[in-house]
Amino acid sequence: MKILAFESSAVSASVALTEDDKLIAQSFQNCGLTHSRTLLPMAEALLQNCGITLDEIDAFAVAHGPGSFTGVRIGVATVKGLALGTDKPCIGVSTLDAMAHGTRALGNRLCCVMDARAGQVYNALFTVEDGLVHRLCDDRALKLIDLGEEIRETPYFLVGDGAELCYNTLKDTCSDLRLAPSELRYPSGFGVAAAALPLLLAGTACSPQQLDAFYLRRPQAERERMQRLSGNA
Amino acid sequence: MKILAFESSAVSASVALTEDDKLIAQSFQNCGLTHSRTLLPMAEALLQNCGITLDEIDAFAVAHGPGSFTGVRIGVATVKGLALGTDKPCIGVSTLDAMAHGTRALGNRLCCVMDARAGQVYNALFTVEDGLVHRLCDDRALKLIDLGEEIRETPYFLVGDGAELCYNTLKDTCSDLRLAPSELRYPSGFGVAAAALPLLLAGTACSPQQLDAFYLRRPQAERERMQRLSGNA
Repeated sequence: MKILAFESSAVSASVALTEDDKLIAQSFQNCGLTHSRTLLPMAEALLQNCGITLDEIDAFAVAHGPGSFTGVRIGVATVKGLALGTDKPCIGVSTLDAMAHGTRALGNRLCCVMDARAGQVYNALFTVEDGLVHRLCDDRALKLIDLGEEIRETPYFLVGDGAELCYNTLKDTCSDLRLAPSELRYPSGFGVAAAALPLLLAGTACSPQQLDAFYLRRPQAERERMQRLSGNA
Repeated sequence: MKILAFESSAVSASVALTEDDKLIAQSFQNCGLTHSRTLLPMAEALLQNCGITLDEIDAFAVAHGPGSFTGVRIGVATVKGLALGTDKPCIGVSTLDAMAHGTRALGNRLCCVMDARAGQVYNALFTVEDGLVHRLCDDRALKLIDLGEEIRETPYFLVGDGAELCYNTLKDTCSDLRLAPSELRYPSGFGVAAAALPLLLAGTACSPQQLDAFYLRRPQAERERMQRLSGNA
């Protein structure tokens, strides 16, 4: 099964082509340009350079959140469009799941953290056994200090764009945290495809109409509007 | 320092753009197409999608071997051309060094192996401490069975396109070998850049005229010619 997978939930962007569990091609960039400019050209160049057309893809996968409102929306919209245009199935996976699958080689315990601003992170904890990723808790938005209380002395590898923030904030209270090396710290298209593969094989793909972004918090604009409304009430 | 790094020593190809020790962008592919078709378009798409021109690159790096005769030659020729055309410095690093630097997150001991055919592998052994890679022996071409004799019970992560062959041949005699997951098994442009950075900072760049391929064995055509000549003598 050939999967074309997209990751654009935070500051970096990545596209990967996999066949079953094998990585065929991947592009990654973390150059600060907006994903709406870079994501589709990355996919186009990748396919063209492999001599593969969209017709040969069996399913499209995307990290559907949590993450930045616009980044997640760009990834989801891209995959909706591709799936609709090619009449192929698609699937959304948790950004944190994708991160764990992409960095499963790092160690036995993974703490995936994305900077959610205002002292919060989007987080989930995972264990890895024989290359298989097991989730220890649901995706959540929580305060770094609360995450530290939970982790304490348990050894964890920190991955994600919130990894450095988390390490710097918690290193004194959580003595066994290790920062993933920078080249493996950001989510990858491969991670999305690896998280999607068992779900696709189990028949849980969805239609482009069903695919949606998955936010743990309301967008900032909505939060501010609600605050204004409650202030005016 | 911005480095544009090329890896095309074996079956896969990769290009990476780094700034100091940070990965800015990377493309990887293992789709079976020849590097002479894929390598430069990968670099061109990568730079264009990051909005970066060749003028902004400080140095070009390449895995200069060991590896496939043609693959290494394509990478070295590409970097010679780019360095000559832009009047920038370049540098070649060992493919096995690049492999170790690209997979240093895997564990403490790395056994980098490339399939050199005829029961041989190109190999070097490394340790990793605090993210720093230390070489335990020179690059060499040796029989798998001799590598097994040397490794014995020492725990090693196997990386490179010879990893699976090595694992399957030696797993019974070397009980503590572990196969790197497939997504990290192949050399990366990032590994080339990471191996090149300290050398470039130490001022050991070379001119495009000086840059050369580094083969551990004579090319097959030469070996066959010498065999014919010695047979005819």
